Amino acid sequence: MRVAEPTIERLVQYHRLLETLKDEGHRVVSSQQIGDLLGFKASQVRKDLSYFGEIGKRGVGYHVERLCDHIVEILSSPKIWRIAMAGVGNMGTALLLNPAFRSPKVRFEALFDIDPRKTGRDISGIHCWHFTEIPSVMSEKEIEVLILAVPAHAAQRCVDLAIASKALRGVLALTQGSLVVPEEILVVRVDIMAELEKLLFFMKQPEAVWG
Amino acid sequence: MRVAEPTIERLVQYHRLLETLKDEGHRVVSSQQIGDLLGFKASQVRKDLSYFGEIGKRGVGYHVERLCDHIVEILSSPKIWRIAMAGVGNMGTALLLNPAFRSPKVRFEALFDIDPRKTGRDISGIHCWHFTEIPSVMSEKEIEVLILAVPAHAAQRCVDLAIASKALRGVLALTQGSLVVPEEILVVRVDIMAELEKLLFFMKQPEAVWG
Repeated sequence: MRVAEPTIERLVQYHRLLETLKDEGHRVVSSQQIGDLLGFKASQVRKDLSYFGEIGKRGVGYHVERLCDHIVEILSSPKIWRIAMAGVGNMGTALLLNPAFRSPKVRFEALFDIDPRKTGRDISGIHCWHFTEIPSVMSEKEIEVLILAVPAHAAQRCVDLAIASKALRGVLALTQGSLVVPEEILVVRVDIMAELEKLLFFMKQPEAVWG
Repeated sequence: MRVAEPTIERLVQYHRLLETLKDEGHRVVSSQQIGDLLGFKASQVRKDLSYFGEIGKRGVGYHVERLCDHIVEILSSPKIWRIAMAGVGNMGTALLLNPAFRSPKVRFEALFDIDPRKTGRDISGIHCWHFTEIPSVMSEKEIEVLILAVPAHAAQRCVDLAIASKALRGVLALTQGSLVVPEEILVVRVDIMAELEKLLFFMKQPEAVWG
């Protein structure tokens, strides 16, 4: 099944919301409610979910638990992904300490930094190496995913080292600036300042269209 | 001019890239090069830019500086936005220390936290108040934008306090979980774990469509 990127982004958000609704004891939810809580149009929600064969009952909505299970299945991983993170500064530490990152889908296998106060020891239970060891450690541990939480000027160098490991397949970049990678390597970027600019842009012209 | 959200996201990325190219002394750039560097299709780049009246010269491309100026103008702010941030933990500190956040478009006017080691003093030159003071401080300083960098369980409470200030118009939420806000308040969310899930999803099925 081919799924376009924005849909996946929304699916992930549906999943989170449904888990919360489940925890709170809700049994059904309407597309309107989902839309209101996530800031999408109800029609968008219905379109997304019907794409995966989920049709809500008119005037009733979707069965929370079933819908949640279905989305979990679509988003499910065939395995536990081995992950490394380069950069254990404030941003990296924030991620390490975020309970959401202790997902059963992923396992942090290695940290990399340049600061001698961090390298050579465990941080939150994960060993931290000097970043020059990225190729050997990633190769040996078969780490396919690198989270980049280093300053912008160090990002390309870290990625190049990870590419040299031959294990790298995907990068989550929390750094600004462009990255050059071979075509077969997937890069997803999170640029918080860009998101802030987007917000300011919409505040400046309230007539702009969302989504 | 009405601009859909995904376009703005790309515009912000074009802007960043063009600033880098300018700094590196490049005078022209093709839609193919822009696409390669940012991970978009060249056709998408041409479509986006032509929407704003920028037509690249066939076989030559776009004039870097002129294109950059044009995008700056589209993204420009009519004023300096006053911003507050709730939560000065690892994530909040990462943003405070990120040079990108020292943009001339924004001014951090206030920080809020619950930790007595942080409240009542300046952090990176910005005063930190107890979060219960959100309504009075935001109202008095006419702060329209709140960055939420608090744990998920505290997010709604902080937003409710900011809404009570009557000054709030936009929220950048770095926290997970749904937020309930009045319709006139814009919310942009950055969910890093969701972005990681997206990456893993694409790694699992390499035939999926990007963008």
